[in-house]
Parts: sequence; C-alpha cells; structure tokens
Amino acid sequence: MASILIGVMGPGETATTAQQVTARALGTHIAQQDWVLLTGGRNVGVMAAASEGAHNAGGLVVGILPGANTQGMSPFVDIPILTDQGQGRNAINVLSCQVVVACGLGPGTLAEIGLALKAQRPLVLMEMPPTLPPMVRGLATSPVTVAAEVSQAITQIHQHLLHGISVSH
Amino acid sequence: MASILIGVMGPGETATTAQQVTARALGTHIAQQDWVLLTGGRNVGVMAAASEGAHNAGGLVVGILPGANTQGMSPFVDIPILTDQGQGRNAINVLSCQVVVACGLGPGTLAEIGLALKAQRPLVLMEMPPTLPPMVRGLATSPVTVAAEVSQAITQIHQHLLHGISVSH
Amino acid sequence: MASILIGVMGPGETATTAQQVTARALGTHIAQQDWVLLTGGRNVGVMAAASEGAHNAGGLVVGILPGANTQGMSPFVDIPILTDQGQGRNAINVLSCQVVVACGLGPGTLAEIGLALKAQRPLVLMEMPPTLPPMVRGLATSPVTVAAEVSQAITQIHQHLLHGISVSH
Amino acid sequence: MASILIGVMGPGETATTAQQVTARALGTHIAQQDWVLLTGGRNVGVMAAASEGAHNAGGLVVGILPGANTQGMSPFVDIPILTDQGQGRNAINVLSCQVVVACGLGPGTLAEIGLALKAQRPLVLMEMPPTLPPMVRGLATSPVTVAAEVSQAITQIHQHLLHGISVSH
Repeated sequence: MASILIGVMGPGETATTAQQVTARALGTHIAQQDWVLLTGGRNVGVMAAASEGAHNAGGLVVGILPGANTQGMSPFVDIPILTDQGQGRNAINVLSCQVVVACGLGPGTLAEIGLALKAQRPLVLMEMPPTLPPMVRGLATSPVTVAAEVSQAITQIHQHLLHGISVSH
Repeated sequence: MASILIGVMGPGETATTAQQVTARALGTHIAQQDWVLLTGGRNVGVMAAASEGAHNAGGLVVGILPGANTQGMSPFVDIPILTDQGQGRNAINVLSCQVVVACGLGPGTLAEIGLALKAQRPLVLMEMPPTLPPMVRGLATSPVTVAAEVSQAITQIHQHLLHGISVSH
Repeated sequence: MASILIGVMGPGETATTAQQVTARALGTHIAQQDWVLLTGGRNVGVMAAASEGAHNAGGLVVGILPGANTQGMSPFVDIPILTDQGQGRNAINVLSCQVVVACGLGPGTLAEIGLALKAQRPLVLMEMPPTLPPMVRGLATSPVTVAAEVSQAITQIHQHLLHGISVSH
Repeated sequence: MASILIGVMGPGETATTAQQVTARALGTHIAQQDWVLLTGGRNVGVMAAASEGAHNAGGLVVGILPGANTQGMSPFVDIPILTDQGQGRNAINVLSCQVVVACGLGPGTLAEIGLALKAQRPLVLMEMPPTLPPMVRGLATSPVTVAAEVSQAITQIHQHLLHGISVSH
C-alpha cells in the first residue's frame, strides 16, 4: 500500500522564526506518525524547517522542486522531484498530499490554499492572519481546520485521513 | 510587436449574475482597447462572460483550457490552448498576462491571485469580499488596485501597463 | 468558431539552412490558408523561421514559450504564452495543434513527435533522416505523412483536417 | 544526501512479455543497488513490471502519475506523485532521474527519450528496434548506451552515475 503523504507549505525567504519553529515541529511529528513529508523542497523558510524536522526524526522527505536541478534544495530532502515548472509545481504539491498543512501565509502559500480547495484536499491552517481562515472556509467544499499547536494539527490530520481518504485519493 | 494580453479570472460554475455582468463588460472594454483577452476558456461563469464580451466586440480571445480537447470550451474562444494540466494551467494563465483582473472569488481565483503575486503581475480586484484586498496587498510586492466599476478597471490596467511593463515581460 | 492551429516544430540552435528555408515557406503558406501558426516561440531555428514567414504573410503566430518572460522570443510572435515549464511545454504545443508539422529532427522535436503520436495528432514529417518515418509509422495509431515539398505538406494538412478533426479536437 | 533515482520507462498497454520480463528484473536489480526506482506509475506494462520487481526486492518506488488521483496506479508504488498533467508528466519523469532506462519503444517512450536527450540525462536503451539507437546517438550530447542484458544495464548505470553526476544534478 502506498505511503501517506502529508504536505507542509508556507513562506520561503520571508518566513518568520515562529513559522519555522512550528514547521520544524510539524516535520518531526509527521515523521513520528510514519507519514511521508512533502514540501516544495527549497532550502528556505517553512520548507527547509519542516524537511529538517522530518529527516532528523528518521522520516522520508519528498521535495517537489521548481527547477531542473537540485541547486538550492534543502539537504534534508530524500526524494527530489525536479519539475522545471516554477510555481506551476504548486498544483502537484497539493494533489500529491492527502492532507495539506499551510503554516504561515505568503503568495505561494495563498496559491496552494486555493489549489487545495479546488482539489478538495483537507486543509490545516496554522500561523495565519485572522481574516484568512473565515475566507478560506467560505470557499471550501472540503474540510478546513485551524490548529494553534502542532499536537492539535497532528490530531486534525488523523481526523482528516479517517474521513477524507475517499475524497483525497 | 507582440499583443498585450489582459487576463480576466473568476469563478466558474459558482459565479454570481453580478460577476458575470461585470466580466462581460470587462471583455467588451478590453477588446475596445485592442488588447487580447486571456481566460481559462471554459463555457461557464466569469470566463464565459468575459469571452463573449470580447469576442462580440471584435476582439481576440485566448482560452487556456484545463483539458486535452475543446469539450466544454466557450464558443467565444478564438485561440484554444489545450494544456491537459487541470488547475496547473492557472500558473500559465497568470504568467501570460501583463495585467490580471480577478472578478469575484472562488478557489481557482484565489490560486490565481497567489500566483499573480508570486509572479509580480499587476492585479486589479473586482467583486471581492471586503477582507480580501487588504490581505492581498499585505502580501504584494507588485501593484494591486481595487476597481468598483469597469471603466475604473480599464483606467487602472492602462496605469499598470505604463508602470509595470518592465516587470511583467 | 475557434481558429485552426497548425504547429511547426523543429530544431532550434542546431537547425540547418535547408530546414529554416522550409520552415519559413511553411509559415507563409500556413498564413495564406488562414490558419494560425503555433511554434515553441524562441528566436532560433525552425521556430523563428516559421514565425517570420507566417507573420510577414499577415498571419497570426502563437508562441508557447519555455520561460516566464519574453526574453529570447521571436519578434514575429503575436500571442506569447509564457509557460515557465521548459521542455514540459512540448506537450502543450502538440495538444493545441490540429496538425503537427515536424521539420528536421532534434531532441525536442523527437519528444514532440512522440507526444503527437500519444495524443493522436496527425503528423507531417519533413527534412527527416530516412530511418525516422518508418519508425514513427510503426508506432502510430493516427495519420503520419511525409512531405518532400511545402506545397505537398499543405495538401496533406488539408487532408488531415478533413479526416482528423474528430480525433484532434 | 538525497537518494539516487533511476527511471525505467517503456510501453504501457502495448508492452510485450519480453519487455515486461526485462523491466521486472531491472526493478529487482535497481532495488538491490539501493537506488530508488522512478516510473510513470500506472498499473500496466513496463511501469508495472519494474515497480513490482523493485518493491518486492525491498526497494522504494516513486510513481509519477498522469492523473489527479491514484486510480489505475500500480499497487507496488510507494510514493505516488499526482501531476494531473497527462503526458506532460514525461518531462518530470526524465528530469527527476539521474539515469533513464528506456525498455521497449512506444510513443510515450519516444517522447521520454527525446526529453532525456534534451535534458542531457544519460540513457540506457534496451529492447529497441535496431534503427533506434543510431538515431538517438546522432542526436545526443550526453551518454547513450545499449544493453542486451539487465546485468549489463546495471553496470552501465553505475558508469553513467560516476561520469554523469555533475550533468544530471
């Protein structure tokens, strides 16, 4: 049976320290559940922190990279997928995950939230500006939850996997 | 010299009448400026209305379609581009336009707004929920304007083209 | 009704003079039939020559570009589609055409021939090494013809359009 | 350090028994070298046989799927990447591998050979019609070898990895 892939998306160069701390803990806990972590693969911000957390906890990390080579890739990516599609890869990121965790808001993350809603992938929102979750829920036809702590996010992912599996795959 | 392409993005099946009326008028006015209209090409909602407006005003309409054939395409599309990339085509929609007009908010439009911000394409927002424009501006490193009427949107597109041309192409 | 798009694909930097002369004449004749020319859009080789021929004969030229901007684009492209997908755009090139003309053989052209066969787009082969056409025909479930002269290619495109329209669109 | 990904590409529905036997053995031997197998992920032909061989030998199998869900996926895929890009995914297949093994010739495989040449990924050719290897070599600026047996293919992959690593990644 195929692995369960959980995505962690969020700002790159503009990520805050809080977002990176959360992302690293998300990576750790995702690996501890024996889920595979999927990120955008670059060596910055939320992607890098989540990858480090998961890899160091013994988990497997898939990085869906924007370029045609591994330049700028996080050293914690185990399986690099080279798309050469720039931001077009965001659609692949979202489709390939059973649950998408958006940790912090940037332009690329906003695109991934929209694509997750469109693809009806369950979403967990963390470290978001207060006006974002109600707006996202207003557009959603699939589950959207908000988590204040990483342990809560992990519980929500488990719930989404139980209820959402027929939708997501 | 290559044509100027202006994108009109917005909800499909869930578009309101007001959004479609605005989109049709946008299409008409875009054609009257001798700009080429670019949409997602399907025969529903904002895409269909904008295409009808532009085509009937004698303009050229490019449709970037999600599928591998022209099934479900607006009959007002002149140049169908078949991507077979589903929502992945949103990245192409945004990159190919010098200015993106988002008319109404749906999941796909949210993705296109995020991708336009990431690609630094100037954005004109219409028919949006009130919390959306401040959030988008908070993420933007390229021009974002809000238009209440179509004539105002056209004026803003002209301004974006004057100032934004070096960014967008 | 949507325009008829005819693709001309072939080598870029490595194109021979003969291939470019043929491509320029193909562009001219395609424009004279009121078909829209589609190419890979770059300012080299077969793409550039076909675009020049079609544009100068008053035709419309669509360029499906590999990058996220118009750098390196043929000045004869009227409608630039910016994919930022590198060679991934080859699939879009082929899907968007009702008939694909491959003029000369390079790695990218070989990919486009394979994709045209897979998508069952009718193919016209010109300026090919002698072992290529039998191999392509052996793999084909859609029409494949070989043209020695441009006028013959135009006749074959007309025939493909008559018989192949239900397949290709 | 990231894993080494080796691609095995070849016909799907039209694969011969010989091609499938070779592909299964390729999968087995690739897993035994601790390389990750990458295929197009579908449950037919060369993809399915290679995936079965690698998975059953304890290896990890990445499947780059054409659709937006796992319908029709080989049960031996461990990491499904859902592209929703149809044949457009062929470019991702090739870019993500350090060496591409083409086992048998179909339209999709022809596209992948062209894309591998364009991306300068080293190629190993197996089960090919006799006119194909000279044609491919004539277009190549990167290593192309022909293997008559699986053990020979594995030796060639080792050599390509030694010499080609700076090119491919």
